[in-house]
Amino acid sequence: MSGSLVVLSGGLDSTVCAGIAASEGSLRLAVTFDYGQRHRIELERAAAVAAYFGVEQLVVRLDASQWGGSALTDESLDVPDADSDTDDTGIPVTYVPARNLIFLSVAVGIAEARDVDSVLIGVNALDYSGYPDCRPEFVQSFAATAALALKRGVEGRPVQIRTPLLDLTKAGIAQLGIELGAPLHLTWSCYRGGPKPCGTCDACVLRARGFADAGLTDPSLS
Amino acid sequence: MSGSLVVLSGGLDSTVCAGIAASEGSLRLAVTFDYGQRHRIELERAAAVAAYFGVEQLVVRLDASQWGGSALTDESLDVPDADSDTDDTGIPVTYVPARNLIFLSVAVGIAEARDVDSVLIGVNALDYSGYPDCRPEFVQSFAATAALALKRGVEGRPVQIRTPLLDLTKAGIAQLGIELGAPLHLTWSCYRGGPKPCGTCDACVLRARGFADAGLTDPSLS
Repeated sequence: MSGSLVVLSGGLDSTVCAGIAASEGSLRLAVTFDYGQRHRIELERAAAVAAYFGVEQLVVRLDASQWGGSALTDESLDVPDADSDTDDTGIPVTYVPARNLIFLSVAVGIAEARDVDSVLIGVNALDYSGYPDCRPEFVQSFAATAALALKRGVEGRPVQIRTPLLDLTKAGIAQLGIELGAPLHLTWSCYRGGPKPCGTCDACVLRARGFADAGLTDPSLS
Repeated sequence: MSGSLVVLSGGLDSTVCAGIAASEGSLRLAVTFDYGQRHRIELERAAAVAAYFGVEQLVVRLDASQWGGSALTDESLDVPDADSDTDDTGIPVTYVPARNLIFLSVAVGIAEARDVDSVLIGVNALDYSGYPDCRPEFVQSFAATAALALKRGVEGRPVQIRTPLLDLTKAGIAQLGIELGAPLHLTWSCYRGGPKPCGTCDACVLRARGFADAGLTDPSLS
Protein backbone atom coordinates (compact mmCIF):
# COMPACT_ATOMS: atom_id res chain seq x y z
CA MET A 1 0.00 0.00 0.00
CA SER A 2 1.08 3.51 -0.68
CA GLY A 3 -0.16 5.05 2.51
CA SER A 4 -2.98 7.09 3.92
CA LEU A 5 -4.14 10.65 4.19
CA VAL A 6 -5.83 12.00 7.32
CA VAL A 7 -8.39 14.81 7.37
CA LEU A 8 -6.88 16.71 10.29
CA SER A 9 -8.84 19.46 12.02
CA GLY A 10 -6.65 19.68 15.09
CA GLY A 11 -9.39 18.26 17.28
CA LEU A 12 -9.42 15.13 19.39
CA ASP A 13 -11.00 12.76 16.88
CA SER A 14 -8.87 13.62 13.86
CA THR A 15 -5.71 13.55 15.98
CA VAL A 16 -6.56 10.04 17.18
CA CYS A 17 -7.11 9.08 13.52
CA ALA A 18 -3.64 10.42 12.72
CA GLY A 19 -2.33 8.38 15.65
CA ILE A 20 -3.92 5.23 14.21
CA ALA A 21 -2.36 5.83 10.79
CA ALA A 22 1.01 6.67 12.35
CA SER A 23 0.95 3.55 14.52
CA GLU A 24 0.37 1.34 11.50
CA GLY A 25 3.05 3.18 9.54
CA SER A 26 0.74 4.38 6.78
CA LEU A 27 0.53 8.13 7.51
CA ARG A 28 1.62 10.03 4.39
CA LEU A 29 -0.28 13.30 4.36
CA ALA A 30 -2.47 15.47 6.61
CA VAL A 31 -5.12 17.64 4.97
CA THR A 32 -6.49 20.57 6.97
CA PHE A 33 -9.33 22.82 5.87
CA ASP A 34 -9.26 26.54 6.47
CA TYR A 35 -12.94 27.05 5.74
CA GLY A 36 -13.60 30.32 7.53
CA GLN A 37 -14.29 28.61 10.84
CA ARG A 38 -14.84 30.75 13.90
CA HIS A 39 -12.46 28.60 15.96
CA ARG A 40 -9.39 29.34 13.87
CA ILE A 41 -7.15 28.31 16.71
CA GLU A 42 -7.75 24.71 15.59
CA LEU A 43 -5.67 25.48 12.50
CA GLU A 44 -2.62 26.17 14.68
CA ARG A 45 -3.29 22.99 16.59
CA ALA A 46 -3.59 20.96 13.38
CA ALA A 47 -0.21 22.30 12.24
CA ALA A 48 1.29 21.34 15.60
CA VAL A 49 -0.17 17.82 15.40
CA ALA A 50 1.15 17.33 11.85
CA ALA A 51 4.58 18.55 13.00
CA TYR A 52 4.44 16.18 15.96
CA PHE A 53 3.96 13.26 13.59
CA GLY A 54 6.50 14.67 11.11
CA VAL A 55 3.99 14.37 8.28
CA GLU A 56 3.44 16.71 5.35
CA GLN A 57 0.42 18.95 5.85
CA LEU A 58 -1.65 20.50 3.07
CA VAL A 59 -3.83 23.41 4.18
CA VAL A 60 -6.77 23.79 1.82
CA ARG A 61 -8.54 27.15 1.83
CA LEU A 62 -12.23 27.21 0.99
CA ASP A 63 -14.15 30.09 2.50
CA ALA A 64 -17.54 28.72 3.56
CA SER A 65 -18.30 32.01 5.30
CA GLN A 66 -19.06 33.29 1.78
CA TRP A 67 -22.39 31.49 2.01
CA GLY A 68 -22.80 30.93 5.76
CA GLY A 69 -25.67 28.87 7.06
CA SER A 70 -23.83 27.82 10.23
CA ALA A 71 -22.87 29.30 13.57
CA LEU A 72 -19.34 28.09 12.88
CA THR A 73 -18.94 30.21 9.76
CA ASP A 74 -21.33 33.11 10.31
CA GLU A 75 -20.36 35.54 13.06
CA SER A 76 -23.94 36.80 13.25
CA LEU A 77 -25.07 33.45 14.68
CA ASP A 78 -24.17 32.52 18.26
CA VAL A 79 -22.70 29.15 19.19
CA PRO A 80 -25.25 27.68 21.63
CA ASP A 81 -24.47 25.82 24.83
CA ALA A 82 -24.65 22.03 24.74
CA ASP A 83 -28.08 20.43 24.96
CA SER A 84 -29.75 23.61 23.75
CA ASP A 85 -32.99 23.37 21.83
CA THR A 86 -32.75 22.41 18.20
CA ASP A 87 -35.44 22.23 15.55
CA ASP A 88 -37.39 19.05 14.72
CA THR A 89 -34.41 17.46 13.01
CA GLY A 90 -32.26 17.57 16.14
CA ILE A 91 -29.49 19.18 14.08
CA PRO A 92 -27.91 22.16 15.89
CA VAL A 93 -26.98 25.51 14.37
CA THR A 94 -23.28 24.56 14.47
CA TYR A 95 -23.95 22.16 11.60
CA VAL A 96 -22.05 23.35 8.49
CA PRO A 97 -23.94 22.45 5.30
CA ALA A 98 -22.16 19.66 3.41
CA ARG A 99 -18.95 20.02 5.41
CA ASN A 100 -17.92 16.37 5.50
CA LEU A 101 -19.14 15.88 1.94
CA ILE A 102 -16.86 18.71 0.79
CA PHE A 103 -13.94 17.63 2.98
CA LEU A 104 -14.11 14.03 1.75
CA SER A 105 -14.51 15.10 -1.88
CA VAL A 106 -11.40 17.25 -1.75
CA ALA A 107 -9.57 14.56 0.22
CA VAL A 108 -10.20 11.82 -2.34
CA GLY A 109 -9.14 14.19 -5.13
CA ILE A 110 -5.87 14.85 -3.31
CA ALA A 111 -5.47 11.13 -2.58
CA GLU A 112 -5.80 10.33 -6.27
CA ALA A 113 -3.45 13.13 -7.36
CA ARG A 114 -0.85 12.07 -4.80
CA ASP A 115 -1.38 8.32 -5.27
CA VAL A 116 -2.45 7.72 -1.69
CA ASP A 117 -4.65 4.67 -1.13
CA SER A 118 -6.89 5.62 1.76
CA VAL A 119 -8.49 8.56 3.51
CA LEU A 120 -9.09 8.52 7.27
CA ILE A 121 -11.73 10.81 8.71
CA GLY A 122 -12.67 11.01 12.39
CA VAL A 123 -16.45 10.90 12.09
CA ASN A 124 -18.28 9.36 14.97
CA ALA A 125 -21.94 8.42 15.16
CA LEU A 126 -22.25 7.74 18.88
CA ASP A 127 -21.19 10.72 21.01
CA TYR A 128 -21.70 13.37 18.37
CA SER A 129 -23.70 16.49 17.65
CA GLY A 130 -26.36 14.93 15.42
CA TYR A 131 -24.86 16.07 12.13
CA PRO A 132 -26.27 14.00 9.24
CA ASP A 133 -22.86 13.76 7.53
CA CYS A 134 -21.43 11.80 10.47
CA ARG A 135 -23.76 8.81 9.97
CA PRO A 136 -22.45 5.50 8.63
CA GLU A 137 -24.99 5.47 5.79
CA PHE A 138 -23.55 8.76 4.55
CA VAL A 139 -19.99 7.47 4.65
CA GLN A 140 -20.89 4.26 2.80
CA SER A 141 -22.76 6.17 0.13
CA PHE A 142 -19.89 8.61 -0.25
CA ALA A 143 -17.39 5.80 -0.81
CA ALA A 144 -19.55 4.41 -3.62
CA THR A 145 -19.93 7.85 -5.21
CA ALA A 146 -16.21 8.57 -4.99
CA ALA A 147 -15.42 5.25 -6.68
CA LEU A 148 -17.61 6.35 -9.60
CA ALA A 149 -16.09 9.85 -9.72
CA LEU A 150 -12.43 8.90 -9.74
CA LYS A 151 -10.09 7.46 -12.33
CA ARG A 152 -8.91 5.08 -9.62
CA GLY A 153 -12.44 3.67 -9.44
CA VAL A 154 -12.41 3.02 -13.20
CA GLU A 155 -9.09 1.25 -12.66
CA GLY A 156 -10.68 -0.98 -10.02
CA ARG A 157 -8.67 0.39 -7.11
CA PRO A 158 -10.92 2.97 -5.44
CA VAL A 159 -9.62 5.22 -2.68
CA GLN A 160 -10.64 3.60 0.59
CA ILE A 161 -12.63 5.69 3.07
CA ARG A 162 -11.74 4.69 6.61
CA THR A 163 -13.71 5.79 9.67
CA PRO A 164 -12.01 3.97 12.54
CA LEU A 165 -13.84 5.98 15.21
CA LEU A 166 -17.32 5.53 13.80
CA ASP A 167 -18.60 3.16 16.48
CA LEU A 168 -16.53 4.35 19.44
CA THR A 169 -17.80 6.41 22.34
CA LYS A 170 -15.96 9.64 23.13
CA ALA A 171 -14.54 7.82 26.16
CA GLY A 172 -13.27 5.07 23.88
CA ILE A 173 -11.69 7.64 21.55
CA ALA A 174 -9.91 9.39 24.44
CA GLN A 175 -8.71 6.04 25.77
CA LEU A 176 -7.44 4.97 22.35
CA GLY A 177 -5.64 8.28 21.85
CA ILE A 178 -3.82 7.89 25.17
CA GLU A 179 -2.91 4.27 24.36
CA LEU A 180 -1.52 5.27 20.97
CA GLY A 181 0.49 8.11 22.46
CA ALA A 182 -1.28 10.60 20.20
CA PRO A 183 -0.51 14.25 21.09
CA LEU A 184 -3.86 15.00 22.70
CA HIS A 185 -2.27 17.89 24.63
CA LEU A 186 -2.05 19.76 21.32
CA THR A 187 -5.68 19.34 20.31
CA TRP A 188 -8.51 21.86 20.34
CA SER A 189 -12.26 21.13 20.26
CA CYS A 190 -14.11 24.25 21.46
CA TYR A 191 -16.39 25.75 18.82
CA ARG A 192 -16.16 29.23 20.30
CA GLY A 193 -12.44 29.59 19.69
CA GLY A 194 -11.68 31.92 22.59
CA PRO A 195 -8.27 31.90 24.27
CA LYS A 196 -9.37 28.92 26.39
CA PRO A 197 -12.05 26.28 25.79
CA CYS A 198 -15.43 27.67 26.92
CA GLY A 199 -16.45 24.43 28.62
CA THR A 200 -20.12 24.81 27.74
CA CYS A 201 -20.49 24.38 23.96
CA ASP A 202 -21.40 21.01 22.49
CA ALA A 203 -17.82 20.20 21.51
CA CYS A 204 -16.44 21.05 24.96
CA VAL A 205 -19.15 19.12 26.80
CA LEU A 206 -18.85 15.99 24.64
CA ARG A 207 -15.09 16.05 25.09
CA ALA A 208 -15.23 16.56 28.87
CA ARG A 209 -17.77 13.75 29.26
CA GLY A 210 -15.56 11.46 27.20
CA PHE A 211 -12.46 11.98 29.33
CA ALA A 212 -14.50 11.76 32.53
CA ASP A 213 -16.20 8.53 31.47
CA ALA A 214 -12.81 7.06 30.61
CA GLY A 215 -11.44 8.11 34.00
CA LEU A 216 -8.78 10.22 32.29
CA THR A 217 -7.55 13.78 32.62
CA ASP A 218 -7.74 15.84 29.43
CA PRO A 219 -4.08 16.67 28.69
CA SER A 220 -5.07 19.77 26.72
CA LEU A 221 -6.45 21.41 29.87
CA SER A 222 -3.43 20.93 32.09
CA MET B 1 -39.97 26.30 -5.60
CA SER B 2 -37.32 28.62 -4.35
CA GLY B 3 -35.15 28.54 -7.40
CA SER B 4 -32.03 27.01 -8.78
CA LEU B 5 -28.28 27.42 -8.69
CA VAL B 6 -26.11 26.85 -11.75
CA VAL B 7 -22.51 25.68 -11.64
CA LEU B 8 -21.16 28.20 -14.15
CA SER B 9 -17.71 27.77 -15.66
CA GLY B 10 -18.15 30.25 -18.48
CA GLY B 11 -18.11 27.48 -21.06
CA LEU B 12 -20.77 26.46 -23.57
CA ASP B 13 -22.47 23.75 -21.51
CA SER B 14 -22.83 25.63 -18.25
CA THR B 15 -24.04 28.74 -20.08
CA VAL B 16 -26.76 26.70 -21.79
CA CYS B 17 -27.70 25.34 -18.35
CA ALA B 18 -27.99 28.90 -17.08
CA GLY B 19 -30.14 29.67 -20.13
CA ILE B 20 -32.45 26.77 -19.25
CA ALA B 21 -32.84 27.97 -15.66
CA ALA B 22 -33.37 31.56 -16.82
CA SER B 23 -35.99 30.54 -19.36
CA GLU B 24 -37.99 28.71 -16.72
CA GLY B 25 -37.61 31.64 -14.32
CA SER B 26 -35.78 29.65 -11.63
CA LEU B 27 -32.24 31.08 -11.87
CA ARG B 28 -31.26 32.43 -8.46
CA LEU B 29 -27.49 32.01 -8.18
CA ALA B 30 -24.43 31.21 -10.29
CA VAL B 31 -21.50 29.47 -8.61
CA THR B 32 -18.11 29.67 -10.33
CA PHE B 33 -14.97 27.87 -9.20
CA ASP B 34 -11.58 29.52 -9.31
CA TYR B 35 -9.64 26.29 -8.83
CA GLY B 36 -6.26 27.24 -10.23
CA GLN B 37 -7.25 26.37 -13.77
CA ARG B 38 -4.82 27.15 -16.57
CA HIS B 39 -7.59 28.69 -18.68
CA ARG B 40 -8.38 31.49 -16.25
CA ILE B 41 -10.00 33.48 -19.01
CA GLU B 42 -13.10 31.34 -18.43
CA LEU B 43 -13.54 33.13 -15.08
CA GLU B 44 -13.99 36.46 -16.88
CA ARG B 45 -16.44 34.82 -19.24
CA ALA B 46 -18.42 33.30 -16.36
CA ALA B 47 -18.70 36.74 -14.77
CA ALA B 48 -19.91 38.17 -18.08
CA VAL B 49 -22.51 35.40 -18.46
CA ALA B 50 -23.80 35.93 -14.91
CA ALA B 51 -24.03 39.67 -15.59
CA TYR B 52 -25.87 38.99 -18.84
CA PHE B 53 -28.52 37.06 -16.92
CA GLY B 54 -28.51 39.61 -14.08
CA VAL B 55 -27.98 36.84 -11.53
CA GLU B 56 -25.86 36.90 -8.38
CA GLN B 57 -22.53 35.13 -8.84
CA LEU B 58 -20.50 33.51 -6.08
CA VAL B 59 -16.86 32.85 -6.99
CA VAL B 60 -15.49 30.04 -4.84
CA ARG B 61 -11.71 29.79 -4.57
CA LEU B 62 -10.19 26.36 -4.05
CA ASP B 63 -6.66 26.00 -5.34
CA ALA B 64 -6.40 22.51 -6.84
CA SER B 65 -2.95 23.38 -8.18
CA GLN B 66 -1.77 22.75 -4.60
CA TRP B 67 -2.01 19.03 -5.36
CA GLY B 68 -2.04 18.94 -9.17
CA GLY B 69 -2.59 15.67 -10.96
CA SER B 70 -4.05 17.32 -14.09
CA ALA B 71 -2.82 19.23 -17.11
CA LEU B 72 -5.45 21.86 -16.28
CA THR B 73 -3.96 22.66 -12.88
CA ASP B 74 -0.28 21.73 -13.27
CA GLU B 75 1.75 23.96 -15.58
CA SER B 76 4.40 21.24 -15.92
CA LEU B 77 1.94 19.05 -17.86
CA ASP B 78 1.04 19.98 -21.44
CA VAL B 79 -2.55 20.07 -22.67
CA PRO B 80 -2.62 17.49 -25.50
CA ASP B 81 -4.36 17.86 -28.83
CA ALA B 82 -7.74 16.17 -29.23
CA ASP B 83 -7.75 12.44 -29.96
CA SER B 84 -4.28 12.05 -28.49
CA ASP B 85 -3.30 8.78 -26.90
CA THR B 86 -4.56 8.12 -23.40
CA ASP B 87 -3.82 5.28 -21.03
CA ASP B 88 -5.95 2.11 -20.81
CA THR B 89 -8.78 3.93 -19.06
CA GLY B 90 -9.31 6.33 -21.97
CA ILE B 91 -9.19 9.22 -19.50
CA PRO B 92 -7.01 12.09 -20.77
CA VAL B 93 -4.48 14.09 -18.75
CA THR B 94 -6.87 17.06 -18.66
CA TYR B 95 -9.00 15.11 -16.18
CA VAL B 96 -8.98 16.90 -12.79
CA PRO B 97 -9.27 14.41 -9.91
CA ALA B 98 -12.70 14.64 -8.26
CA ARG B 99 -13.55 17.96 -9.92
CA ASN B 100 -17.27 17.44 -10.40
CA LEU B 101 -17.51 15.67 -7.05
CA ILE B 102 -15.98 18.72 -5.36
CA PHE B 103 -18.00 21.22 -7.41
CA LEU B 104 -21.28 19.45 -6.69
CA SER B 105 -20.46 19.04 -2.99
CA VAL B 106 -19.79 22.75 -2.58
CA ALA B 107 -22.84 23.57 -4.72
CA VAL B 108 -25.27 21.55 -2.59
CA GLY B 109 -23.79 23.10 0.55
CA ILE B 110 -24.40 26.57 -0.88
CA ALA B 111 -27.87 25.52 -2.04
CA GLU B 112 -28.79 24.41 1.47
CA ALA B 113 -27.31 27.53 3.10
CA ARG B 114 -29.14 29.80 0.66
CA ASP B 115 -32.35 27.74 0.59
CA VAL B 116 -32.15 26.99 -3.11
CA ASP B 117 -33.94 23.85 -4.25
CA SER B 118 -31.91 22.59 -7.16
CA VAL B 119 -28.43 22.56 -8.65
CA LEU B 120 -27.90 22.50 -12.41
CA ILE B 121 -24.61 21.23 -13.78
CA GLY B 122 -23.72 20.94 -17.46
CA VAL B 123 -22.28 17.44 -17.49
CA ASN B 124 -22.67 15.54 -20.69
CA ALA B 125 -21.99 11.87 -21.32
CA LEU B 126 -22.15 11.79 -25.11
CA ASP B 127 -19.72 14.23 -26.72
CA TYR B 128 -17.34 14.49 -23.81
CA SER B 129 -13.73 13.84 -22.88
CA GLY B 130 -14.23 10.52 -21.10
CA TYR B 131 -14.09 11.89 -17.57
CA PRO B 132 -15.63 9.41 -15.09
CA ASP B 133 -17.40 12.17 -13.16
CA CYS B 134 -19.52 13.06 -16.20
CA ARG B 135 -21.31 9.69 -16.30
CA PRO B 136 -24.97 9.35 -15.30
CA GLU B 137 -24.17 6.67 -12.72
CA PHE B 138 -21.90 9.14 -10.93
CA VAL B 139 -24.55 11.86 -10.91
CA GLN B 140 -27.22 9.50 -9.57
CA SER B 141 -24.95 8.23 -6.84
CA PHE B 142 -23.95 11.76 -5.91
CA ALA B 143 -27.57 12.82 -5.52
CA ALA B 144 -28.20 9.93 -3.10
CA THR B 145 -25.05 10.76 -1.11
CA ALA B 146 -25.93 14.45 -0.93
CA ALA B 147 -29.40 13.60 0.37
CA LEU B 148 -27.75 11.69 3.22
CA ALA B 149 -25.23 14.46 3.93
CA LEU B 150 -27.60 17.39 4.14
CA LYS B 151 -30.10 18.57 6.70
CA ARG B 152 -32.52 19.03 3.81
CA GLY B 153 -32.31 15.30 3.17
CA VAL B 154 -33.23 14.58 6.78
CA GLU B 155 -36.17 16.93 6.30
CA GLY B 156 -37.31 14.95 3.27
CA ARG B 157 -36.65 17.71 0.74
CA PRO B 158 -33.23 16.92 -0.75
CA VAL B 159 -31.51 19.37 -3.07
CA GLN B 160 -32.27 18.22 -6.60
CA ILE B 161 -29.34 17.59 -8.95
CA ARG B 162 -30.33 18.46 -12.50
CA THR B 163 -28.25 17.54 -15.54
CA PRO B 164 -30.38 18.71 -18.46
CA LEU B 165 -27.56 18.21 -21.00
CA LEU B 166 -26.64 14.69 -19.97
CA ASP B 167 -28.02 12.93 -23.03
CA LEU B 168 -27.56 15.67 -25.61
CA THR B 169 -24.93 15.75 -28.33
CA LYS B 170 -22.71 18.81 -28.53
CA ALA B 171 -24.70 19.77 -31.63
CA GLY B 172 -27.90 19.50 -29.61
CA ILE B 173 -26.43 21.67 -26.87
CA ALA B 174 -25.34 24.37 -29.34
CA GLN B 175 -28.77 24.27 -30.98
CA LEU B 176 -30.55 24.54 -27.63
CA GLY B 177 -28.34 27.44 -26.57
CA ILE B 178 -29.19 29.37 -29.72
CA GLU B 179 -32.91 28.63 -29.34
CA LEU B 180 -32.86 29.85 -25.73
CA GLY B 181 -31.00 33.01 -26.65
CA ALA B 182 -28.18 32.10 -24.24
CA PRO B 183 -25.13 34.41 -24.59
CA LEU B 184 -22.93 31.89 -26.38
CA HIS B 185 -20.83 34.74 -27.76
CA LEU B 186 -19.48 35.26 -24.23
CA THR B 187 -18.44 31.67 -23.61
CA TRP B 188 -14.98 30.11 -23.52
CA SER B 189 -14.08 26.43 -23.87
CA CYS B 190 -10.38 26.17 -24.82
CA TYR B 191 -8.29 24.37 -22.21
CA ARG B 192 -5.12 26.17 -23.20
CA GLY B 193 -6.40 29.60 -22.24
CA GLY B 194 -4.36 31.62 -24.72
CA PRO B 195 -5.64 34.92 -26.10
CA LYS B 196 -7.71 33.00 -28.68
CA PRO B 197 -9.05 29.42 -28.64
CA CYS B 198 -6.29 27.08 -29.89
CA GLY B 199 -8.66 25.06 -32.06
CA THR B 200 -6.86 21.77 -31.46
CA CYS B 201 -7.40 20.77 -27.80
CA ASP B 202 -10.20 18.40 -26.88
CA ALA B 203 -12.50 21.18 -25.70
CA CYS B 204 -12.01 23.24 -28.89
CA VAL B 205 -12.49 20.24 -31.18
CA LEU B 206 -15.63 18.97 -29.43
CA ARG B 207 -17.10 22.46 -29.55
CA ALA B 208 -16.27 23.03 -33.22
CA ARG B 209 -17.72 19.66 -34.21
CA GLY B 210 -20.89 20.46 -32.27
CA PHE B 211 -21.54 23.76 -34.05
CA ALA B 212 -20.61 22.23 -37.40
CA ASP B 213 -22.94 19.25 -36.92
CA ALA B 214 -25.75 21.62 -35.98
CA GLY B 215 -25.08 23.74 -39.08
CA LEU B 216 -24.42 26.77 -36.89
CA THR B 217 -21.67 29.36 -36.63
CA ASP B 218 -19.99 29.61 -33.23
CA PRO B 219 -20.83 33.15 -32.08
CA SER B 220 -17.76 33.26 -29.81
CA LEU B 221 -15.46 33.10 -32.83
CA SER B 222 -16.95 35.92 -34.84
